[in-house]
Amino acid sequence: MITRNRARAAEPIVLGSVAADSYRQAKDRLRDAITKFGQEGRFRLPSEAELSTALGVSRATIRSALQSLQKEGRIRRLHGQGTFINRHAVGITANLAEASPFVDLLKQAGYSPGARTLDQRVVKLDEDTAASLEVAAGDAALRIERLFEADGEPAVHSVDYVPANLLGDDPEHLDPRRSTFEFADSAGLSVCYSVAEVRPVLPPRPVVAALGIKRSHPVLRLRHTHIRANELPVAVTVVHVNDDYLRFSVIRTYLDQ
Amino acid sequence: MITRNRARAAEPIVLGSVAADSYRQAKDRLRDAITKFGQEGRFRLPSEAELSTALGVSRATIRSALQSLQKEGRIRRLHGQGTFINRHAVGITANLAEASPFVDLLKQAGYSPGARTLDQRVVKLDEDTAASLEVAAGDAALRIERLFEADGEPAVHSVDYVPANLLGDDPEHLDPRRSTFEFADSAGLSVCYSVAEVRPVLPPRPVVAALGIKRSHPVLRLRHTHIRANELPVAVTVVHVNDDYLRFSVIRTYLDQ
Repeated sequence: MITRNRARAAEPIVLGSVAADSYRQAKDRLRDAITKFGQEGRFRLPSEAELSTALGVSRATIRSALQSLQKEGRIRRLHGQGTFINRHAVGITANLAEASPFVDLLKQAGYSPGARTLDQRVVKLDEDTAASLEVAAGDAALRIERLFEADGEPAVHSVDYVPANLLGDDPEHLDPRRSTFEFADSAGLSVCYSVAEVRPVLPPRPVVAALGIKRSHPVLRLRHTHIRANELPVAVTVVHVNDDYLRFSVIRTYLDQ
Repeated sequence: MITRNRARAAEPIVLGSVAADSYRQAKDRLRDAITKFGQEGRFRLPSEAELSTALGVSRATIRSALQSLQKEGRIRRLHGQGTFINRHAVGITANLAEASPFVDLLKQAGYSPGARTLDQRVVKLDEDTAASLEVAAGDAALRIERLFEADGEPAVHSVDYVPANLLGDDPEHLDPRRSTFEFADSAGLSVCYSVAEVRPVLPPRPVVAALGIKRSHPVLRLRHTHIRANELPVAVTVVHVNDDYLRFSVIRTYLDQ
């Protein structure tokens, strides 16, 4: 199979050209190209130089984008052999290791997505949340409660906590945006990475009501601590997912890559 | 903080020397070093060249190990700035994106781990499992049922399905080993990566019995399809985890890395 893929990789590549030398665009293009290659049975990617020419972006940008796609488990890079598509990873719509907004994930899963802010107010932090945010219990935080819908049906319930002292004078009246990530970004608090605890739980009462499910319906609970580049926690987000709508996968790699 | 870390990175590094130019050893050493650095508040890693000298392995090996640790979310590499430890990721014991045997994960979680084979026999594959394995429904497969224990208590239930035609003449009497990964390896079927669907479920009857939990106790269900380097599926493993014992986290990255 490797031989066949090598032969195929020599075929001309037409991927269009990226206007700006934008990393994010390059990565999106690469991801699209990978899906297309995968569907066509071409599992060995062209070289960095070829991709650089085909996409009209620098090799450094291509290299970063490839590293990121490798991190997500979409591709693997074998020393001296090249870069290969993880074929069975191509079809995954919701990859737990990729941080995508829920509206995007629901769209990828084939739904018409919606996002609504249910509530936004300043609260005092409980002990656990305060500990994750490295502030004192009882400190003020902006709490944003959101609901994400799939074809108008409630699918994901999310609650963010952002320490008020990070948000300036009037935290309650900030624009909540469509995701924690975008909200933090708009407040100048860019998230660098998040650590998410993944648990199967029976939904607590407010989630039962918001998602319109039975108390006996197990849901996936993702409790994120969002971290800035300076390693300071910027927000905690507790998400409950009705996996009738959104089913996560994760790619676990074994061989040395 | 970056300035402080930079200054600290200039301190002498004593990590010991790796005997063989072994990638796996280098990665284990690096992971240990990262934990140690993190505990000491040193969040910027030395350069590839310095690590290469300190660990006595080639720069290519260091580079591969760093890529792998980046893929797991343990570190981040910022263009032109260096390699940084994701501090909040250091303490994670069970990372969903890392493929570690359950005995190792239970040990890391502080338990005395155990593994028992409950049953091993040849079965006919159902439609779903056969589809994942890209063979016909009804084809023969070796089914291995295993229980992993934490301090003698049942914690994880696992069932592997490996197509019999991959296993030679006498599949029923193969040594099941302690993990699917090792079993496949011993049968010459090295797993390259796995795609795992992550679901919150109420435990099915055999899992209720094996894990000694109530029917209303939600468990994490991980359904793995294990893939070889030639992209052929080699096994399906369905795992049910009692997360009172083993709680998974995943690191989700946002900023372009």
